[in-house]
Amino acid sequence: MRFKFPLIAIGLEIFMIVLFGLFVQYETDQHTQQRNITKPTDLATFLELYPLFQDVHVMIFVGFGFLMTFLKKYGFSSVGINLLIAALGLQWGTIAQGILHSHGQKINIGIKNMINADFSTATVLISFGAVLGKTSPIQMLIMTIIEIAFFAGNEYLVGEIFKASDIGASMTIHAFGAYFGLAVAGILYRPGLRRGHENEESVYHSDLFAMIGTLFLWMFWPSFNSAIAEPGDKQYRAIVNTYFSLAACVLTAYAFSSLVEPRGKLDMVHIQNATLAGGVAVGTCADMTIHPFGSMIIGSIAGIVSVFGYKFLSPLFTTKLRIHDTCGVHNLHGLPGVTGGLAGIVAVAMGASNTSTMVMQAAALGSSIGTAVVGGLITGLILKLPFLGQPSDQNCYDDSVYWEVPRLREHDNHFHGHGDHSQLEPEV
Amino acid sequence: MRFKFPLIAIGLEIFMIVLFGLFVQYETDQHTQQRNITKPTDLATFLELYPLFQDVHVMIFVGFGFLMTFLKKYGFSSVGINLLIAALGLQWGTIAQGILHSHGQKINIGIKNMINADFSTATVLISFGAVLGKTSPIQMLIMTIIEIAFFAGNEYLVGEIFKASDIGASMTIHAFGAYFGLAVAGILYRPGLRRGHENEESVYHSDLFAMIGTLFLWMFWPSFNSAIAEPGDKQYRAIVNTYFSLAACVLTAYAFSSLVEPRGKLDMVHIQNATLAGGVAVGTCADMTIHPFGSMIIGSIAGIVSVFGYKFLSPLFTTKLRIHDTCGVHNLHGLPGVTGGLAGIVAVAMGASNTSTMVMQAAALGSSIGTAVVGGLITGLILKLPFLGQPSDQNCYDDSVYWEVPRLREHDNHFHGHGDHSQLEPEV
Amino acid sequence: MRFKFPLIAIGLEIFMIVLFGLFVQYETDQHTQQRNITKPTDLATFLELYPLFQDVHVMIFVGFGFLMTFLKKYGFSSVGINLLIAALGLQWGTIAQGILHSHGQKINIGIKNMINADFSTATVLISFGAVLGKTSPIQMLIMTIIEIAFFAGNEYLVGEIFKASDIGASMTIHAFGAYFGLAVAGILYRPGLRRGHENEESVYHSDLFAMIGTLFLWMFWPSFNSAIAEPGDKQYRAIVNTYFSLAACVLTAYAFSSLVEPRGKLDMVHIQNATLAGGVAVGTCADMTIHPFGSMIIGSIAGIVSVFGYKFLSPLFTTKLRIHDTCGVHNLHGLPGVTGGLAGIVAVAMGASNTSTMVMQAAALGSSIGTAVVGGLITGLILKLPFLGQPSDQNCYDDSVYWEVPRLREHDNHFHGHGDHSQLEPEV
Repeated sequence: MRFKFPLIAIGLEIFMIVLFGLFVQYETDQHTQQRNITKPTDLATFLELYPLFQDVHVMIFVGFGFLMTFLKKYGFSSVGINLLIAALGLQWGTIAQGILHSHGQKINIGIKNMINADFSTATVLISFGAVLGKTSPIQMLIMTIIEIAFFAGNEYLVGEIFKASDIGASMTIHAFGAYFGLAVAGILYRPGLRRGHENEESVYHSDLFAMIGTLFLWMFWPSFNSAIAEPGDKQYRAIVNTYFSLAACVLTAYAFSSLVEPRGKLDMVHIQNATLAGGVAVGTCADMTIHPFGSMIIGSIAGIVSVFGYKFLSPLFTTKLRIHDTCGVHNLHGLPGVTGGLAGIVAVAMGASNTSTMVMQAAALGSSIGTAVVGGLITGLILKLPFLGQPSDQNCYDDSVYWEVPRLREHDNHFHGHGDHSQLEPEV
Repeated sequence: MRFKFPLIAIGLEIFMIVLFGLFVQYETDQHTQQRNITKPTDLATFLELYPLFQDVHVMIFVGFGFLMTFLKKYGFSSVGINLLIAALGLQWGTIAQGILHSHGQKINIGIKNMINADFSTATVLISFGAVLGKTSPIQMLIMTIIEIAFFAGNEYLVGEIFKASDIGASMTIHAFGAYFGLAVAGILYRPGLRRGHENEESVYHSDLFAMIGTLFLWMFWPSFNSAIAEPGDKQYRAIVNTYFSLAACVLTAYAFSSLVEPRGKLDMVHIQNATLAGGVAVGTCADMTIHPFGSMIIGSIAGIVSVFGYKFLSPLFTTKLRIHDTCGVHNLHGLPGVTGGLAGIVAVAMGASNTSTMVMQAAALGSSIGTAVVGGLITGLILKLPFLGQPSDQNCYDDSVYWEVPRLREHDNHFHGHGDHSQLEPEV
Repeated sequence: MRFKFPLIAIGLEIFMIVLFGLFVQYETDQHTQQRNITKPTDLATFLELYPLFQDVHVMIFVGFGFLMTFLKKYGFSSVGINLLIAALGLQWGTIAQGILHSHGQKINIGIKNMINADFSTATVLISFGAVLGKTSPIQMLIMTIIEIAFFAGNEYLVGEIFKASDIGASMTIHAFGAYFGLAVAGILYRPGLRRGHENEESVYHSDLFAMIGTLFLWMFWPSFNSAIAEPGDKQYRAIVNTYFSLAACVLTAYAFSSLVEPRGKLDMVHIQNATLAGGVAVGTCADMTIHPFGSMIIGSIAGIVSVFGYKFLSPLFTTKLRIHDTCGVHNLHGLPGVTGGLAGIVAVAMGASNTSTMVMQAAALGSSIGTAVVGGLITGLILKLPFLGQPSDQNCYDDSVYWEVPRLREHDNHFHGHGDHSQLEPEV
C-alpha cells in the first residue's frame, strides 16, 4: 500500500472539503440569509444536548475502538482503523444524510447533525467488526463511503417514507450494520482460514482492554438511544428504558454464559458483548411506553439470544454458511437488532406508540435487512478487486502488515534487560 | 457452580422484573393518574442532571471496576463481577430505596432515583473490595441483595429520621460500605492465607489498568458529591469544595507515600487509592460553607490518614484482628469516611450548615458504622454456607476458577510464535 | 529524594491553603458582602458549562496522563506525575490567574475559574512531555510553580492588553507550553544520551495505553476549544469547527504517516499525536466564522505539519539544536500552535472576526513564544540546581528510580507459576 493508501485518503479528504464548501453552512447562517424559514434553530438546545452527543462520541471512538482490541496482535488496527473509519465517516455521513434531509437547501450544522454523523459511522464500525483482521485500511475507506450511502438511503426510507419508529436504531444501525458486514464477510470468505488462525485469539490484557470498550458502550447507551428523541416524555423514557434494559441484560448474559459452558465458567467473549445486547434490542421502542419492567424483559431476552448466538450460531455460520464473523457482530448487533425490530412491532401492537403502525415497523425491519444485504454484497464484490491491499491469509489478524510494531511485543525476557535475547524478533 | 450461579442469577432477574411490574412506574405516569399530587416533577431537571448521573455511572462501572484490576490474575473478576454486582444492585436499589421513600405510592422513576440506584451499588462495590479474590460470584449476588437492604434502611434513618447532612455520603456510603466489608471479611477470614498468597500482587500493566479506575473516580467525584444536592448554592459548593479537596489530597498523598517508604519511593497502592480520600472525606460537608481552604484542609488530612492506614493499619488488621482487606477499603473509604463524618460535626459546630445539629450528625455516623457492622456480620455468616462456591485458599485471586482464561496470559515467549513452547499452560 | 520531595510537596500545599484562605471565596459570597457589584454571577450557567468542564478535566488527567504512557518502563511516572502536576497546578493556577483578573478584589470561584485552572495546568503538562523521563518529581513541582506564573502573565497580556482572540489557546497554551518545554529541554540536554537510551521505546501494550489518552483528548477537544467561549453563536462555532477540523486532521495524519515511511506502514507515534494537531491548530479561530470547510483545511494542514515534524524535525532538533523532546511536543503543540496563530491572523484578515486585528494577533503569537522561551530558559537553569534529584543518564525513562515497581514487570515466564525463575529481577 506504499502510495495507494495515502493518495486515496488525501483524495477523499479533499473531496470532503469540496463537498463541505458547496453544501454545508453554520446553522446560524440560515437566519442571516433566509429570514422566511420557520424551522426553529436548535442553537438553544445545542449545549443541552451536547453532553449526550459527547457520550455518543465516546461510544464511537473509545467504545467501538477498544471493544475490538481483544485480539492479541491486532490492537493497533482495531483502535486505529476504527478512528480512521469514524473520522471519514462522520464527514461523509454529514453530507449523505444532510443532502437527503435538506430538500435542496444547504445543510445547516446543528447538534443533531453531529449526533447523526456519529450514528452513521456506527453502522460502518459494526460491519468492520465482521471483517476485522481480514481487510486492509484501503478496503475500509471504500466500505465507509459505500455503506454510509446505503445507510443514509435506508434511514431516509424508514424515517421519512415509512415513518416508522426506531429511535435507538435497532433496525437502521444495528441490524443494518450487522447484515451488511455479514454480506461483505461472506463474499470475502477465506477457505484457507476455515480451521482458524493462530492469531485469532486474545491474551489476558487484550481482554481487559476490550472491557474498556464494553463499559463505555454499556454506560452511555442510554444517551445513544435518547440523543435524538423528542424532548420531554419520550427522551425521558428512552433514557430510563435503556438504563434498565441493560441492567437486566447483564444478569441473563452472565447466567447463560455460565450455563452454556460445560464447566460453568464465564466466557469473556459473552461478557464483552452479550451484556450490551439489551441496549441494542430496546432501541426501537426505547421511547415508547413499554414500562421499565417491559424494557427489562426485552433486555433479558436480548442477553440470552446473544449468548446463544455466540455459542451455537457463530460456529455454524463459519462452517455451513461460509461467513466468518470475527467479532460476532451478528450476535451483538444482528440478532438483538432483529429482536428490537420485533419488539417494536409488538409494542406498537400493544399501543405503546401512537405514531407508527405494525406494518410500517415490519417494513422498516425488512427494508433495513434487505438494503444491508444487497449493499453488503455489492461492497464485498468491490472490495475483492485485487489492488486494494487485502492481506494474505497468513498475515491476517496481525498489525505488523500495516503498522510499525514495537520491536518487542510486551514484556518477554528481554524486557528486564538481562534475559535471554534469543527471542528477539527481527523487525518485520 | 455448574447450575447454581445461572439459576440464582436468572431467579433474581425474574424477581426484579416482577417487583418492577408491581411497584415502579414512569414519573410521567403520576400526572396522568393522580392529579392531586403536588410534588413537582423533576422531568424538567432530567437533562440538566443527566451529565452528573453519567459521571456517577462512569465512577461505578469504570471507576470501581478498573480500580480493582491491580491484581495480576484477577482483572476479569474485578471488572466483570463489578459489572454484575452493579447491574443487579441498581435494580434492587431502585426498589429498596424507592419503597422506603414512596410512602405506599408507586415508585416514580426520575433522574434522582437513577442516581440513588447507582449510589446504592457503590456501597456493595466498596465491600466487594474488602473480600476481593476470596469469594465466588454467587456469594457476591447474595451480598448485593442483603447489603443494599441494610444500606437503604440506614440511609432512610440518617436522612429522614435524624435529618442529618451527608450530601456526598461519607458516612452512609463510604464508612458504611467499608465497615460492612470489613465485618464480612472478618467472618470469612482464611487462616491458611495469613502469610499472603503468591497471586496477591500486581504486575506492571495491571497497575496501569488500575490507574484508569483511579482517574475516573478522581475526576468525577465532584459530580458524586453534588448530584443530589439542592440546586443552586449548595450544589455549586459541593462541586467546588470537592474539586479543591481532591487536589489538596493528591499533594499530601504523594508526600506521605514517599515519606513512609524507607527509600522515599512512591507506592502505587497509595497513589491509586489515597489520592481519592479527599473526595470521600469532604462528602458530608461538601455543600456547606466550609470555604475552599477548608475543603483543602479536609482533603490534605484525608490523604495523610489514608496513606498511614495502608502503611500501618492494614498489616495490623490482618495479623491482629484477623481481618484481611484485599483492596484496603478501610483506608480509602473507612477512615476517610469517618474523617468526613467528624468533619461534618465540626462544620455544623462552626455554623457551616443551618439544617443539621452536631448530635444528629454524630447519630448518623454511629448509625452508619453500627448498621454496617451488624449487617456485615450477618452477611458473613450467610456467605459461609458451604454451597455458595467459595474458592479454596489455593484458588484465591485467580480468575481461572470462574472464568475461561486465554490459553496464554500475556506475551510470554510463545507470543512470538517461535519461542520455547514448554511454558504452555494446559487449559485449566 | 528521601525527605526533599515530601517536604516540598507538603510545603507547597500549606502555601496553597494559606493563599486560598487569604484570596479565594465562593462566588456566592460576593452578593452577600458587596451588593454594589454589577458583574452578574455565573452560578446560573454553572451546571450548563459543567459538562464542558468535566470534558476538559478528563483531557487533563486521562488525556495527557495516558498519552505519555507509551514508554515501556515509564507508565507510572507518566500518569502519576501528570496527576501530581495537575493537582498542584490547578490550585496555583486558580490563584495566579485569579489575582491578575480580580483587580484587587477577592477571587470568586465560578465554573470559568475551574476551567481556566485546568487550562493553566495543560501548559505545564505539555512542557512535561518535552522532558519526560529525564526529570525528577521535585523538578516538576518547581516547574509547575514557575511556568504557571509565566503563563498567567502572558495570558493576561494577550487577552487583556492585546485583546487578541485565542479562544482555544493555540498560542497561549499550546505554543507556549511547547516552546517553554523545549527551552527547558535545551538547558537540561544530556550529551550522554545523544545516541538514545534503551528504555526510550514502547512495547505493544504501552502503545495501546497511550491510545486511551489520544482518544479522550481527540473526542473532548471541541469542549476544550469552546468551554470559555461567548455563549451563543461563538460557542456553537467553536464546537462545530473543532469537530470537523479534528476529523479532517485524522485523514491527513494517517495519509502522511504512511507516506513518509519507506514501506508505507503507519507509525503509532503519528497516530497517537498528529491526529490531535487539528484540535490545536483550529484553536485560535475556532469561534470565528471560518466555516466548516475552513476548519477542515486548517485541520488537514495541521495533520501534515505534525507528521513532518515528527519525521524530519525532531531528529534534527536532537542532533543539531541539542534539544531532545521526548514526546515530540513541538510537533503536536508547537508547530500546530503556531499554525493556529497564523491561521488566526489570516482569519482576521479575511474578516472572520470583528473583535481583533491582525497586528494584535501577531503580537499575541510573538508574546506567547517569546515569554515561553525566556521563561523556559530561566526554569531550565533553576532545574539544573544539583539538589533537585534529577536522575542519572542511566536511570532515565525508568519508573523504578522514584516508584516501587512490581517485582515482575508483566507476564514473563514466572507469571504462570511454573516457569523458569532465573529471570526473577531482585527488587531494585
